[in-house]
Amino acid sequence: MIVQGNTTLAACQNFDRETHVNWLSVRGLQDKELIQRIGEEYHIHPLIVEDILHTKQRPKVESYGNMLFITLRLYYIINEQIKSQQISFVLQNNVLISFREHDTGIFQLIKDRIEAGQNQIRRKGEDYLLYSLLDAIVDNYFVVLDSLSERIQALEDDITLHPQKSQLLKLQKLKRTMITMRKHVWPVRELFNNLERNEIDFFEQENKPYLRDLNDHIFRVIDTIETYRDILTSLMDLYHSMLSNRMNEVMKTLTVLSSIFIPLTFIVGVYGMNFDNMPELHSQNGYFILWGIMGALTLGLIIYFKKQKWF
Amino acid sequence: MIVQGNTTLAACQNFDRETHVNWLSVRGLQDKELIQRIGEEYHIHPLIVEDILHTKQRPKVESYGNMLFITLRLYYIINEQIKSQQISFVLQNNVLISFREHDTGIFQLIKDRIEAGQNQIRRKGEDYLLYSLLDAIVDNYFVVLDSLSERIQALEDDITLHPQKSQLLKLQKLKRTMITMRKHVWPVRELFNNLERNEIDFFEQENKPYLRDLNDHIFRVIDTIETYRDILTSLMDLYHSMLSNRMNEVMKTLTVLSSIFIPLTFIVGVYGMNFDNMPELHSQNGYFILWGIMGALTLGLIIYFKKQKWF
Amino acid sequence: MIVQGNTTLAACQNFDRETHVNWLSVRGLQDKELIQRIGEEYHIHPLIVEDILHTKQRPKVESYGNMLFITLRLYYIINEQIKSQQISFVLQNNVLISFREHDTGIFQLIKDRIEAGQNQIRRKGEDYLLYSLLDAIVDNYFVVLDSLSERIQALEDDITLHPQKSQLLKLQKLKRTMITMRKHVWPVRELFNNLERNEIDFFEQENKPYLRDLNDHIFRVIDTIETYRDILTSLMDLYHSMLSNRMNEVMKTLTVLSSIFIPLTFIVGVYGMNFDNMPELHSQNGYFILWGIMGALTLGLIIYFKKQKWF
Amino acid sequence: MIVQGNTTLAACQNFDRETHVNWLSVRGLQDKELIQRIGEEYHIHPLIVEDILHTKQRPKVESYGNMLFITLRLYYIINEQIKSQQISFVLQNNVLISFREHDTGIFQLIKDRIEAGQNQIRRKGEDYLLYSLLDAIVDNYFVVLDSLSERIQALEDDITLHPQKSQLLKLQKLKRTMITMRKHVWPVRELFNNLERNEIDFFEQENKPYLRDLNDHIFRVIDTIETYRDILTSLMDLYHSMLSNRMNEVMKTLTVLSSIFIPLTFIVGVYGMNFDNMPELHSQNGYFILWGIMGALTLGLIIYFKKQKWF
Amino acid sequence: MIVQGNTTLAACQNFDRETHVNWLSVRGLQDKELIQRIGEEYHIHPLIVEDILHTKQRPKVESYGNMLFITLRLYYIINEQIKSQQISFVLQNNVLISFREHDTGIFQLIKDRIEAGQNQIRRKGEDYLLYSLLDAIVDNYFVVLDSLSERIQALEDDITLHPQKSQLLKLQKLKRTMITMRKHVWPVRELFNNLERNEIDFFEQENKPYLRDLNDHIFRVIDTIETYRDILTSLMDLYHSMLSNRMNEVMKTLTVLSSIFIPLTFIVGVYGMNFDNMPELHSQNGYFILWGIMGALTLGLIIYFKKQKWF
Repeated sequence: MIVQGNTTLAACQNFDRETHVNWLSVRGLQDKELIQRIGEEYHIHPLIVEDILHTKQRPKVESYGNMLFITLRLYYIINEQIKSQQISFVLQNNVLISFREHDTGIFQLIKDRIEAGQNQIRRKGEDYLLYSLLDAIVDNYFVVLDSLSERIQALEDDITLHPQKSQLLKLQKLKRTMITMRKHVWPVRELFNNLERNEIDFFEQENKPYLRDLNDHIFRVIDTIETYRDILTSLMDLYHSMLSNRMNEVMKTLTVLSSIFIPLTFIVGVYGMNFDNMPELHSQNGYFILWGIMGALTLGLIIYFKKQKWF
Repeated sequence: MIVQGNTTLAACQNFDRETHVNWLSVRGLQDKELIQRIGEEYHIHPLIVEDILHTKQRPKVESYGNMLFITLRLYYIINEQIKSQQISFVLQNNVLISFREHDTGIFQLIKDRIEAGQNQIRRKGEDYLLYSLLDAIVDNYFVVLDSLSERIQALEDDITLHPQKSQLLKLQKLKRTMITMRKHVWPVRELFNNLERNEIDFFEQENKPYLRDLNDHIFRVIDTIETYRDILTSLMDLYHSMLSNRMNEVMKTLTVLSSIFIPLTFIVGVYGMNFDNMPELHSQNGYFILWGIMGALTLGLIIYFKKQKWF
Repeated sequence: MIVQGNTTLAACQNFDRETHVNWLSVRGLQDKELIQRIGEEYHIHPLIVEDILHTKQRPKVESYGNMLFITLRLYYIINEQIKSQQISFVLQNNVLISFREHDTGIFQLIKDRIEAGQNQIRRKGEDYLLYSLLDAIVDNYFVVLDSLSERIQALEDDITLHPQKSQLLKLQKLKRTMITMRKHVWPVRELFNNLERNEIDFFEQENKPYLRDLNDHIFRVIDTIETYRDILTSLMDLYHSMLSNRMNEVMKTLTVLSSIFIPLTFIVGVYGMNFDNMPELHSQNGYFILWGIMGALTLGLIIYFKKQKWF
Repeated sequence: MIVQGNTTLAACQNFDRETHVNWLSVRGLQDKELIQRIGEEYHIHPLIVEDILHTKQRPKVESYGNMLFITLRLYYIINEQIKSQQISFVLQNNVLISFREHDTGIFQLIKDRIEAGQNQIRRKGEDYLLYSLLDAIVDNYFVVLDSLSERIQALEDDITLHPQKSQLLKLQKLKRTMITMRKHVWPVRELFNNLERNEIDFFEQENKPYLRDLNDHIFRVIDTIETYRDILTSLMDLYHSMLSNRMNEVMKTLTVLSSIFIPLTFIVGVYGMNFDNMPELHSQNGYFILWGIMGALTLGLIIYFKKQKWF
Repeated sequence: MIVQGNTTLAACQNFDRETHVNWLSVRGLQDKELIQRIGEEYHIHPLIVEDILHTKQRPKVESYGNMLFITLRLYYIINEQIKSQQISFVLQNNVLISFREHDTGIFQLIKDRIEAGQNQIRRKGEDYLLYSLLDAIVDNYFVVLDSLSERIQALEDDITLHPQKSQLLKLQKLKRTMITMRKHVWPVRELFNNLERNEIDFFEQENKPYLRDLNDHIFRVIDTIETYRDILTSLMDLYHSMLSNRMNEVMKTLTVLSSIFIPLTFIVGVYGMNFDNMPELHSQNGYFILWGIMGALTLGLIIYFKKQKWF
């Protein structure tokens, strides 16, 4: 039975718990009273209800008797913005209950398939449904990471071209996103590992390979996050080096220019003095000879700097 | 029986150890003799008493026969200042004794609840009381971390706007706070883990999920601390980069300016010389032609620097 | 039976699975339908087929009943360019199936040997063939690393001579290659370890030492990668230091030059003033005395800077 | 029996090995022959004797049959200088032998207590004596670390005030001390752990809590060392940042100054030229108008730099 | 029986495998055929022979039935140069075979002792001989590290005195040596650990303490290498800081100088102008008053910079 939209709690109590895949999908956690009533209805431990409502949980799996509780963080992209929200699952004998803050569309495909008829998810029971939803979450990690990868690559190209302050701010933002995402995804590895090792009884024998698959994927997510962190650190170094490079060039320009003109300015200053007795001033070609000397000096300095590979 | 205020030790001996939750809360550790007398009264091992009095303990849990000893560090905020103090617990058969340096108000809520009547804490015994107190301590770690988070965010915004020396000092102070807090909180993880794994006998069967909850929370505290440390390191990098950026701009300003005016100054120096024979000086429009040349030179340099993206 | 070139699937079904070493080498993964038909023909689990077709797998080994699935990343050099592609193996009772994207020539030697007649690979069965192919892949890691080593060494020599921006970009590219290669090779260690520990039944007793050998080699690959990463980091430091050094020299040049000429320019400026009453101007040897003073000043400054080890 | 001062080896053989606590304290390791004779007398394995004489041992515990050998490094402060020396213990059935290079006074208190009469150490046997000595060594680590903490704090305050080269050298020295101390103390953790886990038989049942206490303390020592290392690294960063800050200020001063005076100098240079036809020179108020223009220019630049927050 | 010099393989076959310590020491690995013949003669597995000939092995220990194979890297100093070569051992029932590239003299002492007569090595069998040779190799690590320590110390003193480019190159070279040595020595720890734990059967009961000793020493080698790596990193920091310091001083010199002379040059420029109407020029004491003003300005600036602690 598929009950869509904003339904009353009462409707949910009519689940046919024997012959169907029952998925109670709760969206929005503001109505705490409702959540607590659902908790009571389905005999969910108060600590679990508290964890569901407190949306800054560390990802974890816990079993309370015949009930499996999973909470983790969903990452998704809306309007080019990376967002995240907490999503919790309670797997009971004949029903899977999911709790999340907003709708993100990432479960749409699964819902469509269930509604479409007697497909695999309907046939295989709530444990396989749980796997499908977790798999969709993990797949979305990759979507987010691919988007991050593109941004990082674009930033790297940009920095290599011309280092600018705006890149620094972008870099800082990417770093923060990465640090936060790592904090949220790292414990998921543990979660899936626990699932496969300790809570395996909640899954049918034939669905176990799928758990291994999840584990496999989350390892790849974490490898990728670590790699991106390394790359971001190395981008910070690159930015610094590019900046130092530019600074060096700027300084060299200044120094070459000063080295040539400061002595010349001194020389013309000398012949601007008003001493009564300055023989050179009265030489017929003094002025032109001086130009020659200054030209030679400039040429000499330019050759010297060329040799020093200053430009 | 609730004995409040500065009571005598004698009064504490009248605890009804069978039917009540007994919590002996000792505040202030200066009176070493009193602590030692309490130690003797309750048969506390001399090594424990020593640990209680020496307020630089590493957080740990130890069991001595039928006695459980826990010491850890409490973090709290008073007048925007982050402070910490050592707090120790001795859990015996029918009494929980807590020792701390000053009052901080964080146990007030629990005390109020106990006094209010037959609530859960009164019903569940000393082990649940111990859990409640530990939970209050861990919750306060989050309060402190949230305050730190706000300061870090404010500092980041500030640095991004305009890097200044005062930010550096703030950053250094936050780093130190983080390093110290990490040193104090890291072993608490081990403590709670030991509690759940090795000293579980001190807790009623029904209270065990609460221990798992503690463990869970402390992991989140540590994740958060590690994340903040990463962010602080990355802020230091940001500060450096912002500074390098500014330095670069300053240098570019200086270089552009010098590049334009140093040659011009040389040129006007030339025509300030007093040679007898300088034909240009006697040309009717020499002065105005020179202005034209200097203008053209300046324009050329400005175009060149624009092309080099120097400003 | 060796079936070469673009053969039809039907031909592959005629394998004599008893008396020969059967190796079905699939090149090119674009024709997904064909891969899926092969999968069905050889009873390969749909999850494996999916992994084969999705070419961004994390290296791993998995056993499904009597089938062993291995996927890893092959590194090779074409036209001085380091490339990589995914390669997957499915080892069944009497056939080894390999899947890869393009041909790279690195299996040519093994193919030649098999075709040449009754050599060791033909005699020893598919498990030894699998070992030979894995060994060829690992050996190619060394080929790639040796090429990287040469590039790193060349870059180091270059930086030591004269730091330049182009080196920075090369360094960044090498770093990225290293980070990616590490991400791909690191899990191979785990793969071979699992192979030796958990999936050992797929190998004949006498071939087990060869697995240990593989393990041994991959450890050396990882050691080398880590070492190169260290060296690249230290090269970045070297680059920075060389740049700082140059900057320092540039600054010293500018400062020495300015220190000498700025005071001199001031002095000649003084005697360029037009005050009515400047006694020095009318002294007979004033001009020559001034030259003497300026010479002495210059000499003094040069001696001072020499003492300060500024040049 | 207490035999003090420079005694002969013969005297030591008269130990009453049954009813007393026997502690043979050897000071000075130059007389290798004597040490070897003691070794033979007490049946100490030649490898142990070698370890005792070679004073660069890694801290370790080893048991040879009924003999326990411990070697570690003692840290102490003499005249504000941090020093260290190797100290070795051999615990046998009825005697504890200690070997060290010089006297440092840190065992004085224990010796005094033993001599004072029937105190705890005398009563409890050689294993408790060994604990007491190890405890004194670990306590001295804290003394040394407290002194280091003060120096680090003083250095931090100093750097925050005004970064100078001398601080850099102090920082480097502190770092080296920390690196060396860490190298020496880190294996002590392992030592005490081994003592508590594997060599526990050498200790009476009632003395076991004391071993746990040692373990506890050494963990705190190591935490503190790691924290100080973090702080020192962060101080190096601070020093750099303070220096960059100053450099920035210096550069800004130079740039502001140059930006104002270089254009002005150019302007006055213009009117120092000797062209025959320069109309401005002959205007009655030209000179004063020029001052006005230069004043306005200066004011404009100052306002501009203020706006740019350059000072 | 001791067979020295370039002997034929035949001679080696006459070993008295019962009553003597038999050590077949092969020097030079160019003659691959000979090595292979030895391999066949002594029934050495082809994989081992391959490992012996391929001189870039990762240090490891492997047992093949009743044969123990060890390969590691020997470090030694020749003419102040740190060199390394691979050395392999095959321990069989009654003979120890060693393979190395060149002679380095470090086994001379052991050979001398064996030849000298019935000493411990002759008495104790091939396993003790193997220990002695391994011990000699490990002892040589310390010799090399001591030499490195001296170089590092000399470099540190040098950098503290005056940072120069040549030091940077030395530092880079030391770092590379350290990275390579670490790569070669790190797996030796594992090797000795395996030897003590898994391959213990190849050693007599009474020789086991010697293995523990080896383990102990290699740990100290690794500790030392890690410490030196830390110190080298900290030296790089020191170099940078010393350079920044110098740069700072250079900049300050330039800025102080410019700050004083640029305004003065402007002032004298003013009075070098040729306006018809400049009243100051005609004042009797104008020139001297100007000197006074300039002197006061200079003094003021010097006092200001002193206050700012610029010199």
